[in-house]
Amino acid sequence: MCMTMPSKQSEAVRRHWVASRRAMVEPDTEGMDDESWGNLTAEPRAVDYVETEAAGLPAMWVTPKRSVADRVLLCMHGGGFIGGSMYTHRKLFGHLAKATGARALIFDYRLAPAHTHPAQVDDATAVYGWLLDQGIRADHVAFTGDSAGGGLTITTQLRARERGLPLPAAAMPFSPWVDMEAVDGSYDTNRDRDPFFHRESVRQIAGMFLGAADPRDPLASPVRADLRGLGPIYIQVGGDETLVGDARQLAEHARAGGVDVRIDVFPAMLHTFQMAAGRAPEADEAIRRMAAWVRPRLGL
Amino acid sequence: MCMTMPSKQSEAVRRHWVASRRAMVEPDTEGMDDESWGNLTAEPRAVDYVETEAAGLPAMWVTPKRSVADRVLLCMHGGGFIGGSMYTHRKLFGHLAKATGARALIFDYRLAPAHTHPAQVDDATAVYGWLLDQGIRADHVAFTGDSAGGGLTITTQLRARERGLPLPAAAMPFSPWVDMEAVDGSYDTNRDRDPFFHRESVRQIAGMFLGAADPRDPLASPVRADLRGLGPIYIQVGGDETLVGDARQLAEHARAGGVDVRIDVFPAMLHTFQMAAGRAPEADEAIRRMAAWVRPRLGL
Repeated sequence: MCMTMPSKQSEAVRRHWVASRRAMVEPDTEGMDDESWGNLTAEPRAVDYVETEAAGLPAMWVTPKRSVADRVLLCMHGGGFIGGSMYTHRKLFGHLAKATGARALIFDYRLAPAHTHPAQVDDATAVYGWLLDQGIRADHVAFTGDSAGGGLTITTQLRARERGLPLPAAAMPFSPWVDMEAVDGSYDTNRDRDPFFHRESVRQIAGMFLGAADPRDPLASPVRADLRGLGPIYIQVGGDETLVGDARQLAEHARAGGVDVRIDVFPAMLHTFQMAAGRAPEADEAIRRMAAWVRPRLGL
Repeated sequence: MCMTMPSKQSEAVRRHWVASRRAMVEPDTEGMDDESWGNLTAEPRAVDYVETEAAGLPAMWVTPKRSVADRVLLCMHGGGFIGGSMYTHRKLFGHLAKATGARALIFDYRLAPAHTHPAQVDDATAVYGWLLDQGIRADHVAFTGDSAGGGLTITTQLRARERGLPLPAAAMPFSPWVDMEAVDGSYDTNRDRDPFFHRESVRQIAGMFLGAADPRDPLASPVRADLRGLGPIYIQVGGDETLVGDARQLAEHARAGGVDVRIDVFPAMLHTFQMAAGRAPEADEAIRRMAAWVRPRLGL
């Protein structure tokens, strides 16, 4: 029997999700707040952070020293559409931008439950349009995002296509959340390994995100969308997370639609383990693979 | 009897120092690293961070939106001269710069034990000279710093004076470490309240910093320096920290030299409690007072 053990540094990701679970059950838990997610990530160093406004939304340019200015990772942060921000994900996308040699743009889309679907995909599409208006070519842009933001890397392309915008060069969703019905069997098979993403919690968050919308809406659950014609997609997911089935479904569905898809399942890893970038070897390897994959697709 | 209780949010400062003590005694403790100090601080928001090189040292411009570009807080981070960085203190000085309406410059001076005294005060003086060379007027600069950096806000002025540089408008040391002999009685009276800064630990760190230097060197222990002619000084210190005596000695010694000095002792607070800025009301009040004190001295 072959057992893969997470690195000691990746155990911090597990502690984060265990603490998040506790904070959900006992909301008065001390020391947990939305910003603490970003504490998993080491400073990438030699990266600048300058806030701006993109399509009327708070946004942040993440600019590694010696990066190519006209190549951009458009970054869609995770947090179940109810949390996360450009601050929690600043360092994570800083690592990825630095490894890629491109700039990154992170933005704060409107959050549920105050703003329900399709506010998030509309915001992401507006920011993409704004980015193109800045003179960045679509084939010099890659979408990337984790969890809820991973879903947005796909749905924003669908919305952009509806609106007549050109598609980006590539998409790199990781630990993507792409089925609001949460029906995949991996919710059962990984339930004991994943400290946070149990089916009932995911459905609860999906309800806050969807409001009155149908969980089968292709713009909310891209595993139900027509993905034909999309550019290449590189998916990463943790082998121990309940969302591994969603990631596999997305890969199979895109491949059936003729899309160039790669999926890497990282054994023993949990949801968004890349947040431990700069500390955990698995996260650094994941970042390295994403950068190596996307560089030629951005002409770098 | 009047008891002052720290806010619930300031308890995070205590937990930090307790964990730091544990990490010192058991170096394999998980989850503690130098960067985690900065996790105490909330994101100030609407502040940009751009790395640069100042006098050959790594440095970072911290620029709040709508700040005045030619007024600068020169920030000297703490960490016992053996730790801390522009990353640990980015958000702390971001809060102070934002409240002041000025830019901040943080820099990484060389650390002990690889580099011993006077490397640190020489680096700080070189960065100050570099700042003046950028066209910033000395009377538009205030020095600020915590702990070891608090000492540097004074000693850098002494070194600058030796080198013929004009003095800055003001200095704002907080929880300053200004006596390498650690003889003050507050090391005894606050020993049970302060989880980290016990006399023997402080002397151990002083030894690493000093190398072969004399702990009574005025450039290492500014409570022994000739402070006559310095500009106004505003000191903040926690009432429960062992270094409160050092802060009081510095205030009395400067006052005896004719310097305009204010000292605020914050009841029940620990060392560098301002690191909880954006979360703890005591830290926010401390930042607010520093900004209100320094603004007119910078002509703001």
